[in-house]
Order: sequence, then structure tokens, then C-alpha cells
Amino acid sequence: MNTPNKIAFQGTHYAFSEIAARKYFSDDIETLPCRQFIDVFKSVENKNCRYGIVPVENSSTGSVYQNLDLILDSAVTVVGEVQLRIEQHLIANPGVKLDDIKMVHSHPQALQQCGNFLESLPNIETIASYDTAGSVKHIRDQKLLHAAAIASRQAAEDNEMQILKEEIEDNSQNYTRFHIIAKTSEIPKDANKTSVIFSMKNIPGALFKSLSVFALRDIDLLKIESRPMRGKRWKYLFYLDFTGTMQEERCRNAIRHLEEIASFLKVLGSYKAAGE
Amino acid sequence: MNTPNKIAFQGTHYAFSEIAARKYFSDDIETLPCRQFIDVFKSVENKNCRYGIVPVENSSTGSVYQNLDLILDSAVTVVGEVQLRIEQHLIANPGVKLDDIKMVHSHPQALQQCGNFLESLPNIETIASYDTAGSVKHIRDQKLLHAAAIASRQAAEDNEMQILKEEIEDNSQNYTRFHIIAKTSEIPKDANKTSVIFSMKNIPGALFKSLSVFALRDIDLLKIESRPMRGKRWKYLFYLDFTGTMQEERCRNAIRHLEEIASFLKVLGSYKAAGE
Repeated sequence: MNTPNKIAFQGTHYAFSEIAARKYFSDDIETLPCRQFIDVFKSVENKNCRYGIVPVENSSTGSVYQNLDLILDSAVTVVGEVQLRIEQHLIANPGVKLDDIKMVHSHPQALQQCGNFLESLPNIETIASYDTAGSVKHIRDQKLLHAAAIASRQAAEDNEMQILKEEIEDNSQNYTRFHIIAKTSEIPKDANKTSVIFSMKNIPGALFKSLSVFALRDIDLLKIESRPMRGKRWKYLFYLDFTGTMQEERCRNAIRHLEEIASFLKVLGSYKAAGE
Repeated sequence: MNTPNKIAFQGTHYAFSEIAARKYFSDDIETLPCRQFIDVFKSVENKNCRYGIVPVENSSTGSVYQNLDLILDSAVTVVGEVQLRIEQHLIANPGVKLDDIKMVHSHPQALQQCGNFLESLPNIETIASYDTAGSVKHIRDQKLLHAAAIASRQAAEDNEMQILKEEIEDNSQNYTRFHIIAKTSEIPKDANKTSVIFSMKNIPGALFKSLSVFALRDIDLLKIESRPMRGKRWKYLFYLDFTGTMQEERCRNAIRHLEEIASFLKVLGSYKAAGE
């Protein structure tokens, strides 16, 4: 188990990122709420926090390019990974009934994840806020009696609010994967997974060649995603996760081989893969 | 050029989906606004509309899994593709000034795409609505003088509203790719691209083997994305676009080969790749 001093996350206390941090590090941590994702990266870069935690993939809405871009552009490495089942609940002030609700506040992603439920409520206005837990605090502080928030169970309990309806997300298999970032590279002893980002010119068979460098060395691929860089015609970014770490010679050889054919390559880090 | 009778899209008139439909089919079409994406698919399945158009990928926010899932589950095929540069504008009633604005209405995706701009406005409340163009109509119909909407230039012009600030999206290279769907398969004469979705057990080297069926036949890959099916442990969905059509024997052979190793496979369709 890691023993960090301070972990930066986006949102207010009891946001899913903070819950994920507690799942990864145990409860005995100090956390720093940040308004934007870039503030999480800045806190780690300037060593205000030893670690940061950011969502990188959701099973319903896909990769979080905003954070993958920040990882690419920042002087940080990925040192860990944690996965969290995201359960969204409709939360209101005590005494408020479902029929009273005219407005629902939450983060845009949460509003999207609960689209079917929100459609089933007649004439509801949805208010986008900058995080889920913050929207609970808002309707509590403002004593709003015709509004509800969508957030975690922990956010409801911490604010002593009522859960009007449980698990309102469209897809009950709604998981988010988070990366733990640090300023200095550290490869845990039980690391078994490495993430890289690379780009290639769209030469025929380029993608197949780049994957061959792993197959030739019996290195398994865990995830691959290609992302066209629009505006940069014929340039593609590839996100790749593979089994093994940069402490293994065959992995270092594969990366050296990949560098021969890639126009750009960054190893994000080696870390222990998250469990279910 | 296609000569459709009626095209279903999600949103109200002048939504980006409708603008994309006009780019693909020419202006001489009849369009059917639908409240939800599933309504677009139903309109095509029950032959109320010959075609439907849905966003499948955005360069900033990634794949639209919701629509890829609907394509997979519905009795439709992909017959075309169109790409649109998404320019977002801040739109208000005539005479309203930027300093007057206290609330900004738009679709959650649009609010996210303009996150930096919205952060730069002090004490703004953001209201999530079910589409961009509809939010313009709303602030016009309600004569709101302290609210603005984020939407397309066409939505501003059609509603005779004022553009307060142009091109407020964080990333100026903000593109969305749309699929044209139809009930019956049709492969255009100039088709040059095919999309498939398949799943595989996580056997070692499975991904590399599945890509080999294309490389062995000199078929270029245009896009690949793996998506873990959480809850279905060790199952992955793969989204793959390749050059060539199902009218070519080498492509049919590759798909037959892929079927040997995939646990599930669906050819979404062959169509003409969108230009920039």
C-alpha cells in the first residue's frame, strides 16, 4: 500500500475521484479538491501534492481525451490505476418528494449517464454544475425544495440529504477508470501493465507494424485506441496498454522498436492494473 | 448524390445533425427532428424515414458509444458518413450584452466543449438542455435577457438572434463524424470504407491475430478502438474501420477469416469515407 501525503482531485469532497482515491490509497489520506482538471496536474507538477487522480475512461462514455491530453502535455507519469463502479443517485433535501422536483443539478457527464431516467420525468429542467458532489451541497445550502442533485451515496450521506431514487444510471455496468499521476517516475513492485501514447504517419500497414513489435515479443495488448488528429491531416494518435513493465528487457526492446516507426512516442508509466 | 425523401435526426431544426445531413444530401431534403437518438433508429426501422443521421465520434470527446450501441442493436446498416467542423457560438436576444449574462443554456456536450470559455465568465450558471438549437429557441421564446445559448451560427440566424461571441469552443479543431443509417443495405458505387464491430475472448494475442486477417490481405486499417465490456469479464468489443468494401472478395475473405476467431461479429456497412 502506498503512503502518500496529499492527493489532488477535481471536484468537491465526495466526488467520484475522491472516492476512487480512497479506494486506491486507503482512507488514511489527505485530499485537495481542485476546480479544474488542469489544477490537478499543476498541483502535482509544482509538488503541492505528491499524487493526483484523474478519470481516463468510462465504460458508457469512453475515453476522457481531456485528461489523456493533459497527461501527454504535463511533466507527470502514471504510477497507478483504480476502477470504480459509478452509481448515481437522485438526492434532495429531507422531506422533498419526487413529484416536487422541477430541476435536477449535476455534472454534464452524470446528467448524460442518467439520460433515460431524466427523460422519464415530465418537464424537468437540468442544470449543469462543475461536479456531482458540489451540486448536492448547492441544493442543501440554498435549501432548494423543487430541485434534486445527481451524485454518489457518500455525497448524500455527508450532506445529510435524502436519496429519492437509487441507481438511476442508464447502464448498471457503469465503471470509470482513473489514473494516479506523480511528478517523478516510480514503478511499483507489483506493476504488470504499461501505457504508451504514440503517433504515426498513415503509411500503409502502419498500425499493424506497430502492433507487431509487441506480438513478436509475446507481449499482450490490453487496450488500443486510435484517435485522428483532425487538422493535422494523416496524423493519428494511438493509445496502447500492454502487459509488462519498463523494467523488463523485452518491453524496453519493444518500445525501442516502436520508436523506429513512430513519429512520436511517450511512455506514460508502468503500474499495477486495476482489479474489477 | 443521394435522393432521399426524409431523414431523421436528433434535436430541433438547425441542430448540428441536421446541418450535417444537409452537407451530405444537399439542401433539398425533408428532415424529421427526433427527441432521442433511439427515436432516430425507430423512424428508420419502421420506414417512417428512409435515412437517419447520428453522431458517432467527436475529435474532442471521442466515440459516441450510445449511438454505436444503437447501431449494433438495431436492424439498420451504415450507408454513408459525413464530417462536420463544430463551431460553437454564444447566442443571446438582440440588445443583450455579455455582462448581462448570468445563465448559459446548451446541450451537455456543447457545454463541455466550451469549458474554458465558460470558466472565464464569472458566476455563470450553466443549464443543460436536450439540444443546442433548442436552447436558442428557448431563450428567444421566453425572452430571457440574462441568459445565452451555445449553438450553431445557423441556429442564431434562423431564430434572428445575436451572436455575442464567436467560436467559443476550447479546441478549434473540433470535428464530429456522423453515420447515415438505412433499413436496407445499400453500397454506394464510390464506397471505399467498411465498419465492423466484433468481440473476442481475451486469449493471448487475440487482438494481433484479428488484425492479421487484414494485414495478410493488404487491407489498410483506418480506425481501431477496443472497449472493455465491464461486467462481462474478459470480453472486449472492437470497433474497426478498414479500406475496401464488402463487394471486394479480399474483404469478404478477411471478414470470413475474422469470424473464425471472433466470438461475435457484425458488419455495419460499406460506404464512402467522409472528406475533411
